[in-house]
Amino acid sequence: MPRIIVKFGGTSVADPARIERAADKVVAEVKRGNQVGVVVSAMAGVTNQLLDYCAQIQSGMESTDYDAVVASGEQITSGLMALALQKRGMKSKSYMGWQVPIISNDQHGRARIDDIPPAILDDALNDDIIPVVAGFQGITREGRITTLGRGGSDTTAVALAAALKADRCDIYTDVNGVYTTDPRMVPAAKKLPLITYEEMLEMAALGAKVLHPRSVELAMAWNVPLQVLSSFEETIGSDLPGTQVVREEDIVEKQIVNGVTYARNEAKVTLMSVPDKPGIAAAIFAPLGKAGVNVDMIIQNISPDGKSTDMTFTIPRDDTALVESVLKDLPDLDSGEIRMDANVSKISVVGIGMSSHSGVATTMFSTLAERGINIRAITTSEIKISVLIAEEYTELAVRALHAAFALDKDAA
Amino acid sequence: MPRIIVKFGGTSVADPARIERAADKVVAEVKRGNQVGVVVSAMAGVTNQLLDYCAQIQSGMESTDYDAVVASGEQITSGLMALALQKRGMKSKSYMGWQVPIISNDQHGRARIDDIPPAILDDALNDDIIPVVAGFQGITREGRITTLGRGGSDTTAVALAAALKADRCDIYTDVNGVYTTDPRMVPAAKKLPLITYEEMLEMAALGAKVLHPRSVELAMAWNVPLQVLSSFEETIGSDLPGTQVVREEDIVEKQIVNGVTYARNEAKVTLMSVPDKPGIAAAIFAPLGKAGVNVDMIIQNISPDGKSTDMTFTIPRDDTALVESVLKDLPDLDSGEIRMDANVSKISVVGIGMSSHSGVATTMFSTLAERGINIRAITTSEIKISVLIAEEYTELAVRALHAAFALDKDAA
Repeated sequence: MPRIIVKFGGTSVADPARIERAADKVVAEVKRGNQVGVVVSAMAGVTNQLLDYCAQIQSGMESTDYDAVVASGEQITSGLMALALQKRGMKSKSYMGWQVPIISNDQHGRARIDDIPPAILDDALNDDIIPVVAGFQGITREGRITTLGRGGSDTTAVALAAALKADRCDIYTDVNGVYTTDPRMVPAAKKLPLITYEEMLEMAALGAKVLHPRSVELAMAWNVPLQVLSSFEETIGSDLPGTQVVREEDIVEKQIVNGVTYARNEAKVTLMSVPDKPGIAAAIFAPLGKAGVNVDMIIQNISPDGKSTDMTFTIPRDDTALVESVLKDLPDLDSGEIRMDANVSKISVVGIGMSSHSGVATTMFSTLAERGINIRAITTSEIKISVLIAEEYTELAVRALHAAFALDKDAA
Repeated sequence: MPRIIVKFGGTSVADPARIERAADKVVAEVKRGNQVGVVVSAMAGVTNQLLDYCAQIQSGMESTDYDAVVASGEQITSGLMALALQKRGMKSKSYMGWQVPIISNDQHGRARIDDIPPAILDDALNDDIIPVVAGFQGITREGRITTLGRGGSDTTAVALAAALKADRCDIYTDVNGVYTTDPRMVPAAKKLPLITYEEMLEMAALGAKVLHPRSVELAMAWNVPLQVLSSFEETIGSDLPGTQVVREEDIVEKQIVNGVTYARNEAKVTLMSVPDKPGIAAAIFAPLGKAGVNVDMIIQNISPDGKSTDMTFTIPRDDTALVESVLKDLPDLDSGEIRMDANVSKISVVGIGMSSHSGVATTMFSTLAERGINIRAITTSEIKISVLIAEEYTELAVRALHAAFALDKDAA
């Protein structure tokens, strides 16, 4: 019997009525002949309420007790979902992280899953019990509650799918799949029926807020087929209504470019005339990492005179002041002027097919040039090209690129 | 080092600011040289919110999943309290029922504590860690979450005090002790410095909503000295500011009558001409118990003719219709007329001293007679006398009896 893990995010279980609708989706999967395990997030708003309580008492401290408070949000949903399934005539049981157990390390507030012994949930599934697992939480080997940090419930679902050798992991959310770009910006955006892990990872990291990158990484590492689909659409009768996230080998006809993504609220930092010597990059980025700055693109060109070079990188715009203060204290940058540009967007085209097609960069750059959009920096990987542009051109660039790569046309 | 367990009720931890004030109380006890363990209820209102979620999905079903939902309320408070204590420089850790473990039977929603292995909390206390235990919850031997039902957090505190051989169990609530009667009704009511378990039990069962009777029974059985005191009063400098609940032997000078209590919202039911034969009481009360009716006073007088008798009992007023329908279906009551009086109050005087003083009943009855208050039924125990009167006389009766037994005077 096929086994699938389905995961419902916070908006999908925001109140008892939505939990009941989600339960209907689970029942439909069971009736289709699947063994189903469920993972739930906290009801939308609950986690923020709990975080607010913690902040009122003390801010910033992440301890096992902070985790005990926050983990109760998913505990509530898992119990309610089990009740909703029982009401529908199903056998169901809620499981907290410690009951599975989902064993994690002791990095409270951002723990990593170490191990999920499958026996307890295996037995439940084989007894026709639908286990409803509280997402986002684990337990240390010392028996203390942990939480898994951002994207934690997606991670729980993927890790469970791997541990239980599930055939698929369905992530129910408030969108019905992964799109070629943001449909709010480009009405012609199309839902992708298939996408590779690598593409999804680039799309997720670049601002498509559908799946947390960490869960995609895990799914890729453990080869768990993912599906992204909507809790709010009727999909009865359709077997795979969402976007499938699979291995490259599983996609027969590859698109050259599958999506155009954007990230606003970036700031560009350029350090002029940085001494061109070994260790200089580490001397710059280690202190930034320590200060908690999430550095994204890093661009360093060759040194024209062999003595100094310019180093460019992007940061979240809110961290501008913090980054300035960190950089001013760096002894190795004595010569360096710091140039900040706080009004940039990052625009990327992503596609597994581009690694074997040379024309993608040309199409991208000329499309932008035709609209008079100046490119301020470029980075590339095997499956994406990203450029920085002035933020005011974001919509224009995304729409132009979406059309230029023929993503406006109906998917085959 | 003296060891005490302190328990905070829902109003005492209703928000983060109150949790911080409660934490100050804990720190004061530690500074007085005590080892302190803490038990907390859910923040006021949280349990009702969680029950409402459950009711929206399905009502009435008490399962392990219902318990998982409801138990999260105390989980939140225990984590927050541990954070508040850490902020005050204390070592502290939260413990859920399963972490202690507080092992209960599997009567979900109203489980009974079977066992509390003391090792984990003993170790914590001896390491100067203040354990903050989530009240009201346990775990079955199969690893499922349970809740202990009404009065559950008081029960957790008393059971922990017994298991950890604590010297005292302090119950912090929104009143500063046990009074001779309801101070809102009788401004001259006095706080009792000492009261016996038996008296407290009668007072609690009779409507003084300070301690749940179940926790008092446990304290009596395990000989745990209790103290009832206020979270909202400054008591720094006073060692035992509340009411001590102790064994009879520990009270040197016994008051004859220690309190006057009342219970409104009672209804009196009289079954006329019930056949006077063995098993008749069971035939009446078993079906009522099965229907969930909480029968209180039961009065059966001798049968004047040896054939039939009148049976009187009291019920919560809200159950009047339910009781009528149950009684009408009883085959053994063929002859019986049913008389209902839905407007009665129960007034009781309670005192460990009355068992050796014959004048109490006389004083009580003549005091009521002088005010023209008709007594409709009487029951007595070793330490209390209860009467039913018309509800409109409740205040008059309580005030008159409070004065008649000299409770208006200052306590010695």
